[in-house]
Amino acid sequence: MAGCCAALAAFLFEYDTPRIVLIRSRKVGLMNRAVQLLILAYVIGLYTHFAEVEMEPPPKWVFVWEKGYQETDSVVSSVTTKAKGVTVTNTSTLGFRVWDVADYVIPAQEENSLFVMTNMIITMNQTQGFCPELPDKTTVCKSDANCVAGSSGTHSNGIATGRCVLFNGTVKTCEVAAWCPVEDDTHVPEPAFLKAAENFTLLVKNNIWYPKFNFSKRNILPNITTAYLKSCIYDAVTDPFCPIFRLGKIVESAGHSFQDMAIEGGIMGIQINWDCNLDRSSSLCLPRYSFRRLDTRDVDHNVSPGYNFRFAKYFSDLTGAERRTLIKAYGIRFDIIVFGKAGKFDIIPTMINIGSGLALLGVATVLCDVIVLYCMKKRFYYREKKYKYVEDYEQGLGGEMDQ
Amino acid sequence: MAGCCAALAAFLFEYDTPRIVLIRSRKVGLMNRAVQLLILAYVIGLYTHFAEVEMEPPPKWVFVWEKGYQETDSVVSSVTTKAKGVTVTNTSTLGFRVWDVADYVIPAQEENSLFVMTNMIITMNQTQGFCPELPDKTTVCKSDANCVAGSSGTHSNGIATGRCVLFNGTVKTCEVAAWCPVEDDTHVPEPAFLKAAENFTLLVKNNIWYPKFNFSKRNILPNITTAYLKSCIYDAVTDPFCPIFRLGKIVESAGHSFQDMAIEGGIMGIQINWDCNLDRSSSLCLPRYSFRRLDTRDVDHNVSPGYNFRFAKYFSDLTGAERRTLIKAYGIRFDIIVFGKAGKFDIIPTMINIGSGLALLGVATVLCDVIVLYCMKKRFYYREKKYKYVEDYEQGLGGEMDQ
Amino acid sequence: MAGCCAALAAFLFEYDTPRIVLIRSRKVGLMNRAVQLLILAYVIGLYTHFAEVEMEPPPKWVFVWEKGYQETDSVVSSVTTKAKGVTVTNTSTLGFRVWDVADYVIPAQEENSLFVMTNMIITMNQTQGFCPELPDKTTVCKSDANCVAGSSGTHSNGIATGRCVLFNGTVKTCEVAAWCPVEDDTHVPEPAFLKAAENFTLLVKNNIWYPKFNFSKRNILPNITTAYLKSCIYDAVTDPFCPIFRLGKIVESAGHSFQDMAIEGGIMGIQINWDCNLDRSSSLCLPRYSFRRLDTRDVDHNVSPGYNFRFAKYFSDLTGAERRTLIKAYGIRFDIIVFGKAGKFDIIPTMINIGSGLALLGVATVLCDVIVLYCMKKRFYYREKKYKYVEDYEQGLGGEMDQ
Repeated sequence: MAGCCAALAAFLFEYDTPRIVLIRSRKVGLMNRAVQLLILAYVIGLYTHFAEVEMEPPPKWVFVWEKGYQETDSVVSSVTTKAKGVTVTNTSTLGFRVWDVADYVIPAQEENSLFVMTNMIITMNQTQGFCPELPDKTTVCKSDANCVAGSSGTHSNGIATGRCVLFNGTVKTCEVAAWCPVEDDTHVPEPAFLKAAENFTLLVKNNIWYPKFNFSKRNILPNITTAYLKSCIYDAVTDPFCPIFRLGKIVESAGHSFQDMAIEGGIMGIQINWDCNLDRSSSLCLPRYSFRRLDTRDVDHNVSPGYNFRFAKYFSDLTGAERRTLIKAYGIRFDIIVFGKAGKFDIIPTMINIGSGLALLGVATVLCDVIVLYCMKKRFYYREKKYKYVEDYEQGLGGEMDQ
Repeated sequence: MAGCCAALAAFLFEYDTPRIVLIRSRKVGLMNRAVQLLILAYVIGLYTHFAEVEMEPPPKWVFVWEKGYQETDSVVSSVTTKAKGVTVTNTSTLGFRVWDVADYVIPAQEENSLFVMTNMIITMNQTQGFCPELPDKTTVCKSDANCVAGSSGTHSNGIATGRCVLFNGTVKTCEVAAWCPVEDDTHVPEPAFLKAAENFTLLVKNNIWYPKFNFSKRNILPNITTAYLKSCIYDAVTDPFCPIFRLGKIVESAGHSFQDMAIEGGIMGIQINWDCNLDRSSSLCLPRYSFRRLDTRDVDHNVSPGYNFRFAKYFSDLTGAERRTLIKAYGIRFDIIVFGKAGKFDIIPTMINIGSGLALLGVATVLCDVIVLYCMKKRFYYREKKYKYVEDYEQGLGGEMDQ
Repeated sequence: MAGCCAALAAFLFEYDTPRIVLIRSRKVGLMNRAVQLLILAYVIGLYTHFAEVEMEPPPKWVFVWEKGYQETDSVVSSVTTKAKGVTVTNTSTLGFRVWDVADYVIPAQEENSLFVMTNMIITMNQTQGFCPELPDKTTVCKSDANCVAGSSGTHSNGIATGRCVLFNGTVKTCEVAAWCPVEDDTHVPEPAFLKAAENFTLLVKNNIWYPKFNFSKRNILPNITTAYLKSCIYDAVTDPFCPIFRLGKIVESAGHSFQDMAIEGGIMGIQINWDCNLDRSSSLCLPRYSFRRLDTRDVDHNVSPGYNFRFAKYFSDLTGAERRTLIKAYGIRFDIIVFGKAGKFDIIPTMINIGSGLALLGVATVLCDVIVLYCMKKRFYYREKKYKYVEDYEQGLGGEMDQ
C-alpha cells in the first residue's frame, strides 16, 4: 500500500527529461541543421514532383494537406440520360422514313449508359423456315456430302439440314433451318445510315453522394438557370458546366471522327470527376467532364470491331404465324462513368502524420551522431562526453564518479 | 577482422539507454502529466466529436479501433429485383384495361434498377407521314414563308416540309415529316394513370462480396424463413430485414408523396449500407436500408422535371406498312445503390498507429522542457542539470568533471 | 535584437545529442537485442501469416511493399458483351423453331450483364378480358360468395370480378379481369427448353482505367492475335487470357450443373480482378477471371428461386384490338463484376511508415529499461547510473556533483 502511494507520488511529482550533451561546434551544429534541411527538402521535393504528375496539380500545401490530414470517401452516384433529335432517311429498302428517339435509342432506358443507333442492317419479314446459308469458306458446297446435318458453326445463322442448295445463280451453300431469309451483314452501309446523329443532343443528369460525409450534389448546379439549360451546349472552355452534350462534339473531344465511328459503332466514355475537398466551400465541389473512347481500335487483334448487337421486332400475320424484322444495330454507346474522392479533415490521419513526422526528424540526430562519433577526428573526445560506460561490477570506472 | 569482432561484441554485449534527469518537483511533475493528459483529452475529444457527426455513431472504442487498426475493403455487389401487382384502368382512349408486371415494368429487367411506369401519354396508330406540328411559339405560322423546309428544332417531332397547314380549326402550324399524328404531351394526366402502383411490391435480392477478405453475404438473412418472406413488408422499425418493399412506403420514407411523384415520375434511391466489422461475428454484418430521392426538385432550374422516356410498340398492318404506338412513359426508377466498407484487423496499420502514438507522447516532454527550461525562474538551475556543455576544445568546462 | 542573434547563433552553431549510459553487460545487451528481434519477428511473422490467408499470396516483400509504400486507386471499368449460338426446339405449342441471339438475349444489350434465356413458359394470344384464375387455396371457390369483387392478391393475375366460374370440368375458381387466358406457371419445363445454351459462347470486352495514375488497359491483351481470338475458348489453365467463354464452362467452374441451373435460372458472376502493381511493368498488370454463383440456393428460405422475369410481345389484330404473347423467361444472367486496386510508389505513405518504424524500435529500449531498472537484482546500481536526481532546491544531492 505504502509502496503504491510512493509509486503514485513518484509518477505524479517527478519529471524526467533526457540529459543532453550540447556541443558548441559550428561545424557539427551547421551539419546537423543541414541534414535536417535535406530531409525536409527531400520530402517536399518529392511532394512537388508527385504533384506535377497528377492530372491537375493542386497547390502544394493543398496536396500535402489532402494526403496526410484527411479522411476520404468514394463517390456514390446515380445517372439519368435523355437524347433529343430527329432525322430522315431515304433508302430503297425502307423508302422515306423519319427517325425519332423512340426509334434509335435502344433500349428505351438504361441506368448509366445510352445507346444511339447510327447504322443498321435490316432484314425484313423473316420467318421460320429453310434457306441457304450465306456463302463463306465453311458454307459453300458442291453436294449434300459437304453439309453435315445438325451442325452449327460459331457464325452460322441456323442449324444445317444437310442439303446443299442454290444461294444464287452461281453459288451453292448448305441449307439451314433458320429465320429466313438469313441476314447478310457482309457489307456495312457507308456512310452511316443515321449519320445525322452527330447533331443529336444528350442531357446527362447526375446525382452524387458521399455517404461518410453525408454530402450530396447534382451536376445541374444551383446557379444555373432553366433558360440557360434550355439553350446551352457543353463546351470545355465556354460552358464547362452545361450538362447537355452534342454527340459529335463528345466523339471529337476524344480525338475521333464521329462519321468514322458511326459506321461500325463504338463505346464512348463520358467521365465525370467529382474530386472534392470538403474542408473548402461545397460550391467549389464541381463536376469535371472528360471523354474517352473505350473500345479497342487497333486492327491487328480485334474481334467484332466497334459495337453492335442484334434485336428483332416481332409481328404475327393473319394466319397467326410469327414474322420478325431483324435489325443488326451499329451505334455508339455512351457510358457515363462517375468517379471521384472527397476529403475532409480528420483528426486520426492528422495525428498519425504528426507522430511520424516527429519520429522522422529524429533521423537527423542519428545521422549526425554517426558522423560526430565515428567520422570526425575528435570523435573519441565527443564519445566520452556522450557516453558513460558502466561495467557490470561495482567498481565501474565511470561508475564511481557520479556518486 | 579483429575490429569487426570487437564491433560485433559491442553490438551484442552492450546496452545503451539515455541518461535521465529526474526533477523531484511537484510543480513540474504535475505540469508534465497535465500536458500529457491534455494531448490525450484533445485526441479522444475529437474522436468523440467526430464519432457523433457520423451517421450512426459507434461506441468510441469501436470507432478508434476501426480507424487505426484495420485493413479495409469496399463492397462488390450484385442485385436482382422483382415487382408484383396488378391494377385496372378505365379511360376513353384505352377503355377498360388490366395492367400487370409485363405491361408497366420497362425494360423487363435491368441490372441495378427497376422502372415502374406510373403515368403515360399514349399516341396510337402512328404512321410515317406528313402532319402539322404541335402549336408553340416556334411552330405557329401564318404562311409557308414562316416555315423553313428541312429545319428541325430541339423539341420538334419531325423535319419541317416548309408548308404551313391547319392544326385545327383556328391554328396553323408548320407541317413536318414525322410519325403522324404527332404526340401531344402538353398535358400530363392528373392524377397519375397508374396511381395504384403505390401498393405494388418490390423484392430486392442483393448479394455482396468483400474480395480482400473473401467474405460474401446476402440480404436474405439465413435466419429468415420462407413463410416470413412470403408475407413480410419492409418497415424500418418492425421489419428492418425484410427485402420486400411497398413502393408507396419507399417514397414516403424519403419524405415525398407518391401520388405527386407518380405524375411526372422521378428517381428513388434504395440505399443498402453494408458497413461491417469482420473482427466481430459475421452475423453482425447486416444490411441497413435507407431511401433518398435522387432527381432534382427545385423548380427554378429544372429541365425535363421528374423522369420519363419514350418507347414504341411496332405493328405492321395488312399491307405490311409499319405502324407504331408511341408511349411517353412517366414513372419512378428505383436505383438500388449498394455501398459499404468492411474492416478487419491487420498488423500493418496497427503497427503504424502504435509507432505514431509513441512518437506523439514525446510531444509532452518537448513542451514541458520548453516550459521548464525557458519559462520557470529556476530555469538556469534546471538547464545546467539537463545540459552538459562541451566546448569545441579539450578544456571543456563541464567536460572534465565526468572523467 | 542581440538576444535574437544569440538565439539564432545557438540554433545554428550548437548540436545537442542525448547522453547515453552504456552498460557493458552480456546479459542486458543480449536481452536488448533479443527483444528487438522478437518485435521484428512478430511483425514479419504476422505479415507472413496474413499473406498466406490472402487469395493469392504474393512474395512477402511484395506484400510488405504494396502495403506500406504505395498510393492506391480503385478501378474504373467499362464492359461490353456479345453472345453467339443457335439452336432448334420442337414442341407441340411452338412446333419446330430456331432460336438465335435476337430471340434468347433479353434485353438486346445491357451495360455490365447479359441475360440468356434457357427456359420459358409461353402464353400465346392473350387478350384483355375475363377468365377464371389459376386454382390455388385462395382462388378456388364454391360460389360467388367466396370471391370478393375488386380484390387482388400478391400472386393473382388480375382483379377479381366477384363471380365464381368453372376453371375446368371439375374445379371452380374466382373470375378475374386480366390478360386471358391467364398464365399457368405451375410446372416449369424439365429439362430446360433451351438446354443447348450450354454450348453458346460469350465474348466479354473489358476496358479498365485507374484515374489517379491515368493508366488504362483492356482484357484483350496486345500480344493476342485475331486468329487466336476467333478460335479460343477460355480455360483457367490453357487459355487464361481468352475473353471468350463457353456458358457451360462458366457454370461448372463455379461448381454447379448448367442443366440444373438452366431450368429455374440463376445469376452467375464473372469476376475480373485487375490488381496491379504499377511499379512493375504494365505488361504484368493482367486480368484474373473467376466465377461465382450469386443467387441463393439454400431451399429453406428462398422466395422465387433462381432467376426469371416476364415480358410480352404485343400484336394488334385486324380489328386493331391488342393481343400479346406473354413469356415468363427463366435464364442465367451473367454479371460481369470488375474490381481491383492499383498500387504505385508514393513518398508520403513511405515516410509515414519509416517514421513509425523508427518509433516502434524505441519500444525495445523501453521494455529493456523496465527489466533492467525494475527486475534485475542490480537494478539500484543501474538506476543511479541512468538517473540523476535533482531536488527542487539548490542543495540537490546529485545536483552538486556536476558543478
